[in-house]
Amino acid sequence: MTTGVRRRMGVEERRQQLIGVALELFSHRSPDEVSIDEIAAAAGISRPLVYHYFPGKQSLYEAALRRAADELAGRFLEPPQGPLGARLLRVMGRFFDFVDEHGPGFAALMRGGPAVGSSTTNAMIDEVRQAAYEQILAHLEVGKPSARLEMVVRSWVSLAESTALLWLDGRRIPRAELELQLVHDFAALAAVSAAYDDGMADLVVRMLADEPADGPFGDLVGRLLDLAPRVPAQRLR
Amino acid sequence: MTTGVRRRMGVEERRQQLIGVALELFSHRSPDEVSIDEIAAAAGISRPLVYHYFPGKQSLYEAALRRAADELAGRFLEPPQGPLGARLLRVMGRFFDFVDEHGPGFAALMRGGPAVGSSTTNAMIDEVRQAAYEQILAHLEVGKPSARLEMVVRSWVSLAESTALLWLDGRRIPRAELELQLVHDFAALAAVSAAYDDGMADLVVRMLADEPADGPFGDLVGRLLDLAPRVPAQRLR
Repeated sequence: MTTGVRRRMGVEERRQQLIGVALELFSHRSPDEVSIDEIAAAAGISRPLVYHYFPGKQSLYEAALRRAADELAGRFLEPPQGPLGARLLRVMGRFFDFVDEHGPGFAALMRGGPAVGSSTTNAMIDEVRQAAYEQILAHLEVGKPSARLEMVVRSWVSLAESTALLWLDGRRIPRAELELQLVHDFAALAAVSAAYDDGMADLVVRMLADEPADGPFGDLVGRLLDLAPRVPAQRLR
Repeated sequence: MTTGVRRRMGVEERRQQLIGVALELFSHRSPDEVSIDEIAAAAGISRPLVYHYFPGKQSLYEAALRRAADELAGRFLEPPQGPLGARLLRVMGRFFDFVDEHGPGFAALMRGGPAVGSSTTNAMIDEVRQAAYEQILAHLEVGKPSARLEMVVRSWVSLAESTALLWLDGRRIPRAELELQLVHDFAALAAVSAAYDDGMADLVVRMLADEPADGPFGDLVGRLLDLAPRVPAQRLR
């Protein structure tokens, strides 16, 4: 019966509740600024009881980060159907949703202040980067990437991070524009590599061949070809 | 007279010598792994004497980082003459020289481990990023950048960092190739932004108009136009 009496939580349930409360607080302010007292108050329990479940703030922070990392990695999952540009654009939408929801915490984490940077947190960040990298390779249907493809994909993942961090600092560009820009940036970085490497050229041609003209990749190529006449012809061979 | 008797150094001279010795050690191994004893031995003085000049390893590390940051910022300086692509390529060459010389220390610093990440070191990293950003704006002859141009330049600076870090992890791609690729990446990221923003379009047209066909930008555009026929025509409008 649930007649207004507060139900006593089990150990695991209480841990999960504390992690949720902590993640919410750590998402909206730098972890440095969040105290155990606040977490206890937000969870409706006493400070000593928090310590019963977690030895200290760092361990609670790491548990919250674990949950956030799993959630973010989950947002990278996208069915392997339809044009690649549209898939990547949907993933970017979910990535920016995440960044939007966890802004200050994401910024503090990625900037690696002294109170939050540890080998555990760094390992979790690397794990999410690796998940993003593997998802992209899966969508490109590439099993064993060349060193150049690996560089393109990993450096683009890093570009997505830094673009999101720059966006959080003032939010002066509409996020939808940046989501599309990052999809275009992926094509642009791949094209640069394709200009000098046959394997990358084959991949980019294959990538574009399946794209509709009105998808993000087709639209970009069309717009760039429109710009080309403005550059003196002899400059373009 | 210098007849084999070791000359006694002045305070500032000794400090500078210790910073140089420390920077050399911190450059070749992760700062976590370098002890004050080693620094003392390499400088040919006793451990207590090191503490006479620096209160501890963190302060010596920060002084070494200060010197490295100033040196790196100095390498961004490039006379504002000649085609922009060639200027940027020379700067990339000096940037990779730096990364090559200070590899493990650079990697440890940028990955922000617990022993090295502090608000002081983070502020120095941001200072170098800002110096790079301002240099590029000066070469583009832009005084007040739009939010979009700022995003392109700052995200490219971050791309240069991550590309260098990825290169250090195995060095599987010749560095000269990556130096050129980063110059191309700059043009590519600017072009993506130009496809959707008139101000960026004007800037990119101006940038390319002064480029020779055999410079890095002209060469890239030529190669990409060579690739275009391989993509089915209807995909490109």
